[in-house]
Amino acid sequence: MNIDTVTKPHERLAEILTGEMGAVNELIRTRMASEHAPRIPEVTAHLVEAGGKRLRPMLTLAAARLFGYAGDHHVRLAATVEFIHTATLLHDDVVDESAQRRGRPTANLLWDNKSSVLVGDYLFSRSFQLMVETGSLRVLDILANASATIAEGEVLQMTAATDLGTTEAIYLQVVRGKTAALFSAATEVGGVIAGATEEQVKALYNYGDAMGIAFQIADDLLDYQGDSAATGKNVGDDFRERKLTLPVIKAVAQATPDEHAFWERTIGRGRQEEGDLDHALGLMAKYSTLEATRADAFGWANKAKASLEALPDHEIRTLLCDLADYVVSRLN
Amino acid sequence: MNIDTVTKPHERLAEILTGEMGAVNELIRTRMASEHAPRIPEVTAHLVEAGGKRLRPMLTLAAARLFGYAGDHHVRLAATVEFIHTATLLHDDVVDESAQRRGRPTANLLWDNKSSVLVGDYLFSRSFQLMVETGSLRVLDILANASATIAEGEVLQMTAATDLGTTEAIYLQVVRGKTAALFSAATEVGGVIAGATEEQVKALYNYGDAMGIAFQIADDLLDYQGDSAATGKNVGDDFRERKLTLPVIKAVAQATPDEHAFWERTIGRGRQEEGDLDHALGLMAKYSTLEATRADAFGWANKAKASLEALPDHEIRTLLCDLADYVVSRLN
Repeated sequence: MNIDTVTKPHERLAEILTGEMGAVNELIRTRMASEHAPRIPEVTAHLVEAGGKRLRPMLTLAAARLFGYAGDHHVRLAATVEFIHTATLLHDDVVDESAQRRGRPTANLLWDNKSSVLVGDYLFSRSFQLMVETGSLRVLDILANASATIAEGEVLQMTAATDLGTTEAIYLQVVRGKTAALFSAATEVGGVIAGATEEQVKALYNYGDAMGIAFQIADDLLDYQGDSAATGKNVGDDFRERKLTLPVIKAVAQATPDEHAFWERTIGRGRQEEGDLDHALGLMAKYSTLEATRADAFGWANKAKASLEALPDHEIRTLLCDLADYVVSRLN
Repeated sequence: MNIDTVTKPHERLAEILTGEMGAVNELIRTRMASEHAPRIPEVTAHLVEAGGKRLRPMLTLAAARLFGYAGDHHVRLAATVEFIHTATLLHDDVVDESAQRRGRPTANLLWDNKSSVLVGDYLFSRSFQLMVETGSLRVLDILANASATIAEGEVLQMTAATDLGTTEAIYLQVVRGKTAALFSAATEVGGVIAGATEEQVKALYNYGDAMGIAFQIADDLLDYQGDSAATGKNVGDDFRERKLTLPVIKAVAQATPDEHAFWERTIGRGRQEEGDLDHALGLMAKYSTLEATRADAFGWANKAKASLEALPDHEIRTLLCDLADYVVSRLN
């Protein structure tokens, strides 16, 4: 794949799916509205308009299109997935006490924590209504399990983030919760609603799961080596916020007693001083953990691509393959 | 009904349903557990053990028993309803910044807001999994709609609470969201899973709806005239927290310009001074709004009892009738 082509894979997907994405956006607007509580569209419009790539709903539409689906339930499911994503962001902002998301002030700063919690709950309930409308118990089962994985991952992250005993296995579970579970549910329900075989549904799940993990590892890596102008984040935010991510977990695993004491002080107890971030970056360089993390991200992207082999040969499949390359291309 | 009998109706219901309630409690314990996130049972056990009457799950079991249901899905639905209730309490505590619930410190004080938000989300997702296991789309539809009513009511309450333009109709909608929607869903799904007719399901909905409204109005009234030793709340908490409830809404509706200015200052702008609560109580006495609110509560309790007429003659039906009397008996 030539990642320097003018049009990025998600933009090409958006072009191919433009009619259906229009229907998804319209459905989101309609269902966000509340006759009685105008605060709701105020808070959500702020988030929904902030944009993002709408990757998750596109994955649902793409999976359904891959199997020639001709109904309209995939539009409901795409909106469902975006509602769940937006609800999660609202609750995350309360939890993280974030002041910015995508370069704009977060809802909990513009309004308050109450609005973020309650409007998040409202969006969850709206997503629930939308998925029930598809009449597919299988879809409901997938989304119920994804919701539980997401919620459990969020709680786990809260306790694991500053615990130096956090292993790569626990990190992976947190990542599945915060990112991969919704990606895999998004692709899986698109296939289920379109009548894909069990083997194909499994492949769609595997693709979404591996894509989500690659995506999140890339994100965590960019926190330490990204261009802050491009990512909208400062280098080392995760360090300052005491979030244990893969580059640090790998360094802690190999730390000398002195180094372990450094991580314990800065991440475990959060007593950070001037120069600590540079020292942390030095330790990551010593053990080449940024390179190792990068290799992991590419490994997951390859796994995502490999799972596409079980799916029909189709323009969409090619784009999904390119998309897996694209999420880690930021690391080149 | 003699409300001075030794055993209260909900206690008699608990006796009759003791085996099934045991199964519900066991299911709650099992599904609350999280292999990976021990914080979850810590937070929820605190709430679940705090007790309360377990009215909602009992209503589900009672409705199913009324129609001779012999399966075990009603146990799942009862646990579902209790999980939704507990999740709502956790999120309410964040929203209210409450320090006490049922005479014990709230989860957000013992742990933090993060835990309350995320563990609440976890319980919602667990309840979602439980209801999917029943395989009934009708049940899922009822609970999805109830969730949306609850969430919308909570958002509405947040904006309406300090707005003197709040009418009795808006108050009723808030009450349906915060209390009645889960009561009515609890009774309705019990009937649906047991194969009740449409007319009977409608009657169960009406019973739960009216019961929930009576219950909440009684609660709001007791805030102004209750015995704080018995209720565990101080008289006038709602006034101090600037929550517009029925006794005040009725007084505002009849207020002279001076009185309106008083309400605007104390509730609208929250600038309260020494003696304001006494003055507020005086205005409620002037317009007999506590008596009028009490009459409303009894009216809803009677509506609940009337809707039972469409249901089969059964020991459970008698107890549901007594229960409607009981929730307003606190007002005698």
